Amino acid sequence: MSQAASSAAASPEALLHMGRDVLARQPFSVLIGAELAVLAPGHCELQVPITDRVKQQNGFVHGGVVSYAADNALTYAGGSALGAAVVTSEFKINYVRPAVGERLIARAHVEHAGRTQAVCRCEVFVLDRGVEKLCALAQGTIAALPKND
Amino acid sequence: MSQAASSAAASPEALLHMGRDVLARQPFSVLIGAELAVLAPGHCELQVPITDRVKQQNGFVHGGVVSYAADNALTYAGGSALGAAVVTSEFKINYVRPAVGERLIARAHVEHAGRTQAVCRCEVFVLDRGVEKLCALAQGTIAALPKND
Amino acid sequence: MSQAASSAAASPEALLHMGRDVLARQPFSVLIGAELAVLAPGHCELQVPITDRVKQQNGFVHGGVVSYAADNALTYAGGSALGAAVVTSEFKINYVRPAVGERLIARAHVEHAGRTQAVCRCEVFVLDRGVEKLCALAQGTIAALPKND
Amino acid sequence: MSQAASSAAASPEALLHMGRDVLARQPFSVLIGAELAVLAPGHCELQVPITDRVKQQNGFVHGGVVSYAADNALTYAGGSALGAAVVTSEFKINYVRPAVGERLIARAHVEHAGRTQAVCRCEVFVLDRGVEKLCALAQGTIAALPKND
Repeated sequence: MSQAASSAAASPEALLHMGRDVLARQPFSVLIGAELAVLAPGHCELQVPITDRVKQQNGFVHGGVVSYAADNALTYAGGSALGAAVVTSEFKINYVRPAVGERLIARAHVEHAGRTQAVCRCEVFVLDRGVEKLCALAQGTIAALPKND
Repeated sequence: MSQAASSAAASPEALLHMGRDVLARQPFSVLIGAELAVLAPGHCELQVPITDRVKQQNGFVHGGVVSYAADNALTYAGGSALGAAVVTSEFKINYVRPAVGERLIARAHVEHAGRTQAVCRCEVFVLDRGVEKLCALAQGTIAALPKND
Repeated sequence: MSQAASSAAASPEALLHMGRDVLARQPFSVLIGAELAVLAPGHCELQVPITDRVKQQNGFVHGGVVSYAADNALTYAGGSALGAAVVTSEFKINYVRPAVGERLIARAHVEHAGRTQAVCRCEVFVLDRGVEKLCALAQGTIAALPKND
Repeated sequence: MSQAASSAAASPEALLHMGRDVLARQPFSVLIGAELAVLAPGHCELQVPITDRVKQQNGFVHGGVVSYAADNALTYAGGSALGAAVVTSEFKINYVRPAVGERLIARAHVEHAGRTQAVCRCEVFVLDRGVEKLCALAQGTIAALPKND
């Protein structure tokens, strides 16, 4: 279960800083070199540099890494809108093209946010010699964790 | 996009051997230590030992690793039934419990196989002090790649 | 949004009676002749007799009716486990065969139930000259409505 | 399984006419009064007037009708891009608001089209006293049927 903490009341700089701090404390995200490029209320862009370690046997980015990028971007987008610690409840992903290139770019945005959950969508692109190509589309539910105070 | 090659006509030992060979050629699967425990026509069990590197900031297995396990297990199950090189077209996953324990176990099975695609389901468990607990449920479509010959 | 009310504490007969009462108050379910065959804690079977009115242009049951059956069965299964008024938050469905026959049978069951939501699965069969054939598979989240008291 | 026939090569008027002709031959779509408002390559708008017959027990549009609208709109959008007889292979839907109002409006568009299948998204709105409100979001795969010739 992915999890991110953020606050909708934070300044843009503080929000991105907070998001990057969470990412830096996710050993798996560090392992594959994920970077949080953008985090704004209801919107997130997460990138993964494409190195050999994230590939499968044909030289494409492994589907599990594409789904990681979608999952984590959805979580950040939802968290930025809900202003709370959140988890991804569920998501679905459609793969439309093998990911070959230099960089994976997952952009997620909130489509509808209620009090306790947000429905978000994400598009995953691969940057291939300067051109972005759509690789996958995702849609899912991000839920705020109950406050313990 | 995940991809696996297999043959429904192979002997049980040959099928498992072939599956493990594909896994060993997936750098990402090697990176996180994934193991193919079972591969039989229409059925697969994939395991990931839980080390710090697959976790997020709260000490749970990262959702992206859980979705990787589901995705890859679905692909193997579908490939074992279709007897061809395959890709995961799409899947959805519901997370039901944070994954805390020693080992992630993803079991996938074919629910319906046609000529060119299979619909599969997967349950992901975490082995926690000897007890298996359900962490996630997935359902998706595995498609045979067109033969190039 | 589908909605059902039920109570996990009710006797088996009372639970089924309550479920049928809710169905009878759904004009759309009445319109297409849906019947609640089974309702037990965590399990539901909903049937739709196949008449011309539920078909599409090729004589198959319309996909929208198959998804209705899955949606409603998931909602009942979840509601029977949560013991509360519930709604379907989301679901996904894979169609695997055109539905041709006398009767659509949707069987849903709870895979995991928490305090406020349940993850359920459903298989939709068509009864064709005495033989059940799998037509679709679904998986989704059922959420308890907040109590207003 | 929903099914629509169309041709990407047709004129705009011919495409819409062809789409309406298919809808008129779907007894279920006629039963609930569905109307095809727009059909263009890669895009579709399907409407359902909200009458008592499409409701559930609380006076909201039944979730099954919302999912019908999404399913059918996805199918038309995919068919318009693939230029062939098509079926919906799978889709997922998130409900975000009870549908209360005069008219259900489902707008679907193609996100990626290959040779044999298209990944599409759909938003379902309810028109409530002149204001459109988002009720549900869907994403799915539309597949071209093999040609029989």
